[in-house]
Amino acid sequence: MDAELQNKLKKEAARKAASYVKNGMVVGLGSGSTVKMLVDELGRRVKEEDLQFTGVATSIFTAQQAKSLGIKIVDLDMVDSIDLTIDGADQVDSNFNGIKGGGGNLLWEKIVAINSKKIVWVVDKSKVVDTIGAFPLAVDVIPFGSQHVMQNFDKAGYEPVLRLDKEGKPFKTDSNNLIIDLHLHKIEEPTQLADNLIQTVGVVEHGLFLNMVSEVVVGKEGQPEILVNPNIG
Amino acid sequence: MDAELQNKLKKEAARKAASYVKNGMVVGLGSGSTVKMLVDELGRRVKEEDLQFTGVATSIFTAQQAKSLGIKIVDLDMVDSIDLTIDGADQVDSNFNGIKGGGGNLLWEKIVAINSKKIVWVVDKSKVVDTIGAFPLAVDVIPFGSQHVMQNFDKAGYEPVLRLDKEGKPFKTDSNNLIIDLHLHKIEEPTQLADNLIQTVGVVEHGLFLNMVSEVVVGKEGQPEILVNPNIG
Repeated sequence: MDAELQNKLKKEAARKAASYVKNGMVVGLGSGSTVKMLVDELGRRVKEEDLQFTGVATSIFTAQQAKSLGIKIVDLDMVDSIDLTIDGADQVDSNFNGIKGGGGNLLWEKIVAINSKKIVWVVDKSKVVDTIGAFPLAVDVIPFGSQHVMQNFDKAGYEPVLRLDKEGKPFKTDSNNLIIDLHLHKIEEPTQLADNLIQTVGVVEHGLFLNMVSEVVVGKEGQPEILVNPNIG
Repeated sequence: MDAELQNKLKKEAARKAASYVKNGMVVGLGSGSTVKMLVDELGRRVKEEDLQFTGVATSIFTAQQAKSLGIKIVDLDMVDSIDLTIDGADQVDSNFNGIKGGGGNLLWEKIVAINSKKIVWVVDKSKVVDTIGAFPLAVDVIPFGSQHVMQNFDKAGYEPVLRLDKEGKPFKTDSNNLIIDLHLHKIEEPTQLADNLIQTVGVVEHGLFLNMVSEVVVGKEGQPEILVNPNIG
């Protein structure tokens, strides 16, 4: 799929997902390139359709973008709960298990997600896969002692790579942690892997979001397809 | 036990534990009031007995103290592994399950501990208990969304209290996280609790150190008693 088509499909899916936002809602706003389009569309609706909602952002970038478009953003700790969170994903399989963290915001994204009554992901069709894992799995780690975490991941065969920023320095998350990307190729047992990772001392969070999402809006030719998770009410 | 006696017992135990450090070792140095005495004694041995070892500190405070006494301190990521870590504990039971984190350094302490070939704790006899839990259990949490973690702990009956510093502001760890102290009174199933806590999104680490310590040097009248963990070689 060429980049132009992919962009078009993402935009249509983002537009569809934006229609889920209703007046008075508290809405979690994810991060990443598709969510950027979503926030643009929500900004348009605020301006042109007088849409009124309160946003909770999963990254400093999203907060800044939303505010610049006139969207009201509050801190997560200022709301009791979130009605709906719309986020992107790097990969999702037919069991609604997904990988997130390509943008490095998985920690705040997961914290917002678990405080949300409903989660919707927006992706283009290239992200829907049989088995997740071809996309590197981001792990958020404490800088202190992180070389030892790297070594342990290496011994476990996880092919870890410390993420660098554009200047070649270690990438820092919005919580000032590091990201280690695991090149796992295929994740056959995501629940077991998630447990191993979260039990690793020094690991704060990982990019496996397992069976948390209610709907996936998939950008594809014609019109977006909605995948509904039968396991979530 | 009055404070003067307690101090004397801690000092004797710290002195005993310091004798475990041999030339050429890489030694993890814990945190807290007893470890402060240990580091003082190690500084004396470096000066008076020409003891030579490399220290890895579990807190900024310990690093500064050790350096001021002429002890060589390196970053954890500069060493392959740690030969011996000596640390304090707030409580320890007969199964060698302990609570740490009274000083707020549990995250770095646990990271150092899991990279150590041998762990020794130094305590006074008041810390040895039948069941841990009377001492509040510290949990290291990401600031983002931490009010929701507090609420969930409250619902679980954990009696959470956000730790404040001397100025009444939220206490910040050396990794810039927050500490929530759980008032659990008695921890009957520490393994189950540890699993629940580490699976909580937003929790980085907790103060349960279960069956990790090889020996506990207990300060008591007469001379320190050594408790040896039969489950660790």
